[in-house]
Amino acid sequence: MLPSVTIDDINTAADRIRGVVSQTPLLWSAEIDALVGGRVLIKAECLQQTGAFKLRGAFNAILQLTDEQRQNGVVAWSSGNHAQAVAMAARTVGSPATIVMPADAPGVKIANTRALGASVVLYDRTTESREDIGQTIAAQTGAAIIPPFDHPAIIAGQGTAGLEAVHQTAALGLNIDNVIAPASGGGLIAGAATAVKAAFPEALAYCAEPQGFDDIAQSLTAGRITPNSRVGGSICDALLARQPGTITFPLLKALLAGGATVNDTECLRAMRTAFDRLRIVLEPGGAAALAAVLARRIPTQGRVTLVIASGGNVDPATFARALEQRPYA
Amino acid sequence: MLPSVTIDDINTAADRIRGVVSQTPLLWSAEIDALVGGRVLIKAECLQQTGAFKLRGAFNAILQLTDEQRQNGVVAWSSGNHAQAVAMAARTVGSPATIVMPADAPGVKIANTRALGASVVLYDRTTESREDIGQTIAAQTGAAIIPPFDHPAIIAGQGTAGLEAVHQTAALGLNIDNVIAPASGGGLIAGAATAVKAAFPEALAYCAEPQGFDDIAQSLTAGRITPNSRVGGSICDALLARQPGTITFPLLKALLAGGATVNDTECLRAMRTAFDRLRIVLEPGGAAALAAVLARRIPTQGRVTLVIASGGNVDPATFARALEQRPYA
Repeated sequence: MLPSVTIDDINTAADRIRGVVSQTPLLWSAEIDALVGGRVLIKAECLQQTGAFKLRGAFNAILQLTDEQRQNGVVAWSSGNHAQAVAMAARTVGSPATIVMPADAPGVKIANTRALGASVVLYDRTTESREDIGQTIAAQTGAAIIPPFDHPAIIAGQGTAGLEAVHQTAALGLNIDNVIAPASGGGLIAGAATAVKAAFPEALAYCAEPQGFDDIAQSLTAGRITPNSRVGGSICDALLARQPGTITFPLLKALLAGGATVNDTECLRAMRTAFDRLRIVLEPGGAAALAAVLARRIPTQGRVTLVIASGGNVDPATFARALEQRPYA
Repeated sequence: MLPSVTIDDINTAADRIRGVVSQTPLLWSAEIDALVGGRVLIKAECLQQTGAFKLRGAFNAILQLTDEQRQNGVVAWSSGNHAQAVAMAARTVGSPATIVMPADAPGVKIANTRALGASVVLYDRTTESREDIGQTIAAQTGAAIIPPFDHPAIIAGQGTAGLEAVHQTAALGLNIDNVIAPASGGGLIAGAATAVKAAFPEALAYCAEPQGFDDIAQSLTAGRITPNSRVGGSICDALLARQPGTITFPLLKALLAGGATVNDTECLRAMRTAFDRLRIVLEPGGAAALAAVLARRIPTQGRVTLVIASGGNVDPATFARALEQRPYA
């Protein structure tokens, strides 16, 4: 079966969102390279506007809405990074946005989403379904649903982070051997792996998931979509989607060499290491792929590993906890 | 009198250091723009290798040494950012480096300088002269002195940060109206202002200095080099040079519209604001220019202000203090 998202879709998305989305830098640190015995290139999506890669997919989807659709508004559900991205993209095109967010989302994410002009509807993560609430709003208002990951336009948009990194890596005279990104529903790694493997067909792709929320790894092992048994309790608030999507899962099956699992402490230690060595602010979920590399969950010896550092929206108190950790050294 | 550093020198420096020094991103935040009533473009030099702009000048100077000079080694004095930069540039060309550092420099800066292979000689900031110690070492070993700011090659190298920002700003379709950078001896702002005013002759240039260490502002007012009366006691460890140099001062007199002074709390609040809004890690001195803008020390209303965020080498304990501050909002 043909994949639902191809490199052509990602190239088209890159053209579409050019000018509204920033090119983020590719960072590295000799100390991190020495630690893992290979080159580690960090795509710093925390430096994207709204602090996460999510703006790429949100703009790619919203820029394809008709004028009439834009007038009816958009609705999305998100723990925070997709929320802020949809709010900003909607505001840019003059479309009203309603965002369904868990009541226990980081305060900074809720505040930023509201500051971007969106209406925020809070729900209880343990007893309510964000999809149900969002779909009800869409039915009542005629708003277009901008899904967090399970849509080709979203996946292609997120894939532009990988496409940019391909160009930046080639400019350094290097080939990419591994690509790893944090995964919730798998939209980012599905798109990024598509872009990386189009340029470097031998590259191995991995997702990084929090312990207890490794639904993609479990689904890959089982050969079918397998939900998490837990719904909360990880510091990685951005990575708690219950299961991969019906669009992302076939892509992930075709693209991924495997999944890596990291615990809360490993994410905090990766945040501390990024503070020391890269001078960037990562949120716990945004640091999951870097944590997987630093904790040696994937083979990096003698290889060039592209790590997507996907977001940096974190409350000061959580970041202060990361500062108290022992960095990887 | 002709200036000692011109835009031609900066263009030449940019060609010389291309490939060994990273292009750092230009960041911005709609919230910061709204706060100051203008556009604020932040040149994130904290994301440079070794965590500060200093690598630019160090490479520009060291790449001009002869093979024989490289064999004899280099010596420098620095509270830490120039130290790490000289250590890395020297290691890159295979030259032994000796760095004279104050015993009270941040631990992270001393550790990183040693990790880059340099010999570190500690001195007491209140009773000893780092210049005397460095010059004695140079006389004994034949090592080339790589001064922290008062040399045309250093100033031209630092100016490449401004040159890059000019190109990045033009790519956004904007003109630069103000440029402001943290200043210790004034090498960075002398070079950056030269680059900015070559492209945008009407631009106003400012330095940002810590309260009690505003030797450049005092010197500009007095019309002659005027040293600080204090030698320590600011959180901005990178900005404590006693006075502008004999090469930087004439440049600063010709280039600067004025100086802005910020206190420790303002720098910590700017660090917190950069954490929230830009997701970058700044050290106190590296945040001084951003602090001056956020504290409204220079006119920003309706203007495009280029702010150089010059460094991000900060101990976790100091960053934790910044996290406890009230951000500018």
